[in-house]
Amino acid sequence: MNYRMLFYILGRILGTEAILMILPLICAVIYKENLLPFIIPILILAAIAAVLSFKKPKETTISSREGFMCVALAWILLSVFGALPFVISGDIPDYVDAFFETVSGFTTTGASILTDVESLGRGVMFWRSFTHWVGGMGVLVFVLAIMPKSDIKGTKYMHLMRAEVPGPTVGKLVPKISETARVMYGIYIVLTVVVIALLLAGGMTLFDATTHAFGTAGTGGFGIKNDSLASYSPYCQYVIGIFMVVFGVNFNLYYFLLIGQFSKAFKNEELWCYLGIVAVSTTIITVNIFSTYGTLSESFRHSFLQVTSIISTSGFSTVDFNTWPVLSKVVLVLLMFSGASAGSTAGGIKVGRILLLFKNARREVHYILHPRSVRSVKIDGGAVDSDTIRGTTSYIIMYIGIFVTSLLLLTIFDGVDMVSGFTAVATAFNNVGPALEKFGPASNFSSLSQISKLLLSFDMLAGRLEIFPILILLSPSSWKKSS
Amino acid sequence: MNYRMLFYILGRILGTEAILMILPLICAVIYKENLLPFIIPILILAAIAAVLSFKKPKETTISSREGFMCVALAWILLSVFGALPFVISGDIPDYVDAFFETVSGFTTTGASILTDVESLGRGVMFWRSFTHWVGGMGVLVFVLAIMPKSDIKGTKYMHLMRAEVPGPTVGKLVPKISETARVMYGIYIVLTVVVIALLLAGGMTLFDATTHAFGTAGTGGFGIKNDSLASYSPYCQYVIGIFMVVFGVNFNLYYFLLIGQFSKAFKNEELWCYLGIVAVSTTIITVNIFSTYGTLSESFRHSFLQVTSIISTSGFSTVDFNTWPVLSKVVLVLLMFSGASAGSTAGGIKVGRILLLFKNARREVHYILHPRSVRSVKIDGGAVDSDTIRGTTSYIIMYIGIFVTSLLLLTIFDGVDMVSGFTAVATAFNNVGPALEKFGPASNFSSLSQISKLLLSFDMLAGRLEIFPILILLSPSSWKKSS
Repeated sequence: MNYRMLFYILGRILGTEAILMILPLICAVIYKENLLPFIIPILILAAIAAVLSFKKPKETTISSREGFMCVALAWILLSVFGALPFVISGDIPDYVDAFFETVSGFTTTGASILTDVESLGRGVMFWRSFTHWVGGMGVLVFVLAIMPKSDIKGTKYMHLMRAEVPGPTVGKLVPKISETARVMYGIYIVLTVVVIALLLAGGMTLFDATTHAFGTAGTGGFGIKNDSLASYSPYCQYVIGIFMVVFGVNFNLYYFLLIGQFSKAFKNEELWCYLGIVAVSTTIITVNIFSTYGTLSESFRHSFLQVTSIISTSGFSTVDFNTWPVLSKVVLVLLMFSGASAGSTAGGIKVGRILLLFKNARREVHYILHPRSVRSVKIDGGAVDSDTIRGTTSYIIMYIGIFVTSLLLLTIFDGVDMVSGFTAVATAFNNVGPALEKFGPASNFSSLSQISKLLLSFDMLAGRLEIFPILILLSPSSWKKSS
Repeated sequence: MNYRMLFYILGRILGTEAILMILPLICAVIYKENLLPFIIPILILAAIAAVLSFKKPKETTISSREGFMCVALAWILLSVFGALPFVISGDIPDYVDAFFETVSGFTTTGASILTDVESLGRGVMFWRSFTHWVGGMGVLVFVLAIMPKSDIKGTKYMHLMRAEVPGPTVGKLVPKISETARVMYGIYIVLTVVVIALLLAGGMTLFDATTHAFGTAGTGGFGIKNDSLASYSPYCQYVIGIFMVVFGVNFNLYYFLLIGQFSKAFKNEELWCYLGIVAVSTTIITVNIFSTYGTLSESFRHSFLQVTSIISTSGFSTVDFNTWPVLSKVVLVLLMFSGASAGSTAGGIKVGRILLLFKNARREVHYILHPRSVRSVKIDGGAVDSDTIRGTTSYIIMYIGIFVTSLLLLTIFDGVDMVSGFTAVATAFNNVGPALEKFGPASNFSSLSQISKLLLSFDMLAGRLEIFPILILLSPSSWKKSS
């Protein structure tokens, strides 16, 4: 176990968090608010970072196991310290509540324990939305992007990225991993700036535009109003809706567009499946809620906004969809599970994974009919290797296992009704945000017991990191000295 | 495509149904009821059987595809004709209702559209429970048991059995398939007689004991009283409860006991998992409902009866568990999905399959940590071959696909609330019987639209035959002429 290198990387990550916290600090300065909620954590983080990363170890290679553990530990520590501004400012005095809120932010879930989000200070509010943006693309990816090249040698660092970027496979866009990370962040920043500009053009203030752009880019969904997006203009709602779809697309495709490989981008099967699901779901719900709103334009807008918000696992809302007819709610719950594309900032199982699983199941039927035939599962024209298929099917089994266990524990801890419990776990584990019934978009998670909040925090982290890093961190065999 | 042999086998199966219908006919004679509800179908079935099985084809080998299609067609036709006694007697005048009830019987689901089961004639009531017994072990298995050996040559007939006996793998107990089928049916008949004897000893009439033994042995759950088992003595309830567990065990284990291979029977991992789940679930629910019933004995009895009834996918009930606390209901819903053991008469996913999937997922984590290691998935000490693992994971994916599609369609057709819709599909697809809320044990499925009844009939058949035969029957490529 290369503990030295593990600590070194963790130090770098916590140091990065200190630097990132300077932004909300500036915001607090501008709005003339108390600066201590940011200065204290920045000093603590800087001190820890200095100790951990004081000296670079000679041996910088890490095993894949250490990579996974590093990612899991990093995300937990980021949330542990990221919760401090909420507590110190007094906006969320209870530490467990603040931890839940921070995990919800970094994992881009957007589930909140706040009953009155509008009462937050501006600096804290900025930090809350900013965690979405940071967590969306991933902190490790950010650190890899800014790390000096000499620090990351060997292909092992691919594991760090693989553990943080969602989806069954992660491709290096360019030969060097640090450059891949830089390209990803470059696209991410440019798209975020576009959203800010479009929202400013729609009449939002800079603060509102920036925080909503963070929530949209990270597909997080923390709003800064108690009614989420309801009080903004349809133009602003549509901008956010369309960009939630945009940020749910695999970022590799934008890179392909950027370097002129249009056919490679547009031949992506997952993309068309994803857009197809958005179109079909929007149509079904528009028809289903038409009698509620009376006009086609309003039914379509609410349908489109809720569909894009849920499938991209953002969680913004323009209406309380908990009051919708059951068909619309069933569709939305299914979208929670599907999620958007692999390699995007969205959560959920991912359309690509579902596509792969169904193609594999179809092959199985073929195999029963023609036992001696050989047929491979093809995605985008290329055969998928058996390791990826095996990994994906195992992923689903572990997903179901964690889901069922969480549902049972939540029911034991809090005894909420079935729909509330089921959708609460679904929304946390898929990093969506709002659930149904007791935890619907017009409500929040403040009524849960502290232990259930920790349980859902675990689900959010497991969902964001796609299970394996968290399982490996918790697996006793990972901590054995040998191998 | 060997159509001649396909028709020949279907003829034999329908002829067998005619013979089986003689039993309820005798019952109707004893109770001096109208005999036409049985005489007409018997004559129709005999005529069709005579035409289809008039001449044995020269070529008797069939492909695995034909085997699967044969099983699927057989089950549909058995239900199509098995519904006639209900319609002709006027007990269930609507044909779709009668078809639903018959499918529910043969698939050992036990979901009913009857609002007053006590008003049925004795002959029809006997037939209704008898379908459970016939469907429990399987009609094809029965036909294989009684077919002359010269008719079934080649290993291809294993497919017929594989398609009908639930579980990820089906082992031949003895080298000859017809003898395996006979051994299975022998054990089945003896155990059923034991249940009848024990219920008679508890004061039940012969009619009540026989019909309840059919429902218990087939893990079906059709009762003959409107309150299911509630009005019988605790002794009778316990007999049924214990034997629901017994019929949820892999029948191969009874064969091992029979031939003295005790260690092989008791080293079965699935068995201990299954019994463990029963014990833990019963304990949780006993504690959870204690305040409702006040005494430990009553809480334990209701808990044990409902747990054994649901995990064995029978569906008898001693109380309306829809009124229980949410934790108990969540546990019961989870048991609906797990089901009991492979190779038993129970439905559901099967404990053995879940065990296999989790062992496989654990291996995947191991594989991530040690990429170069080779480790096989072991059940009962032996390595499971990769085909079985691949087939099982594909099974789960198709299972989820059918489940989600059914839930969506049911919501579109009938718009029932989420819990009712979700549990209705779960109870049909897992062949349990009662659902929750609108379709709870104190209610029935009569309020559903006709199209939803057909949808749930499809789910019951797909669940009983474990998806593949039905999918292959519906797959257009199966009907192509070539290979």
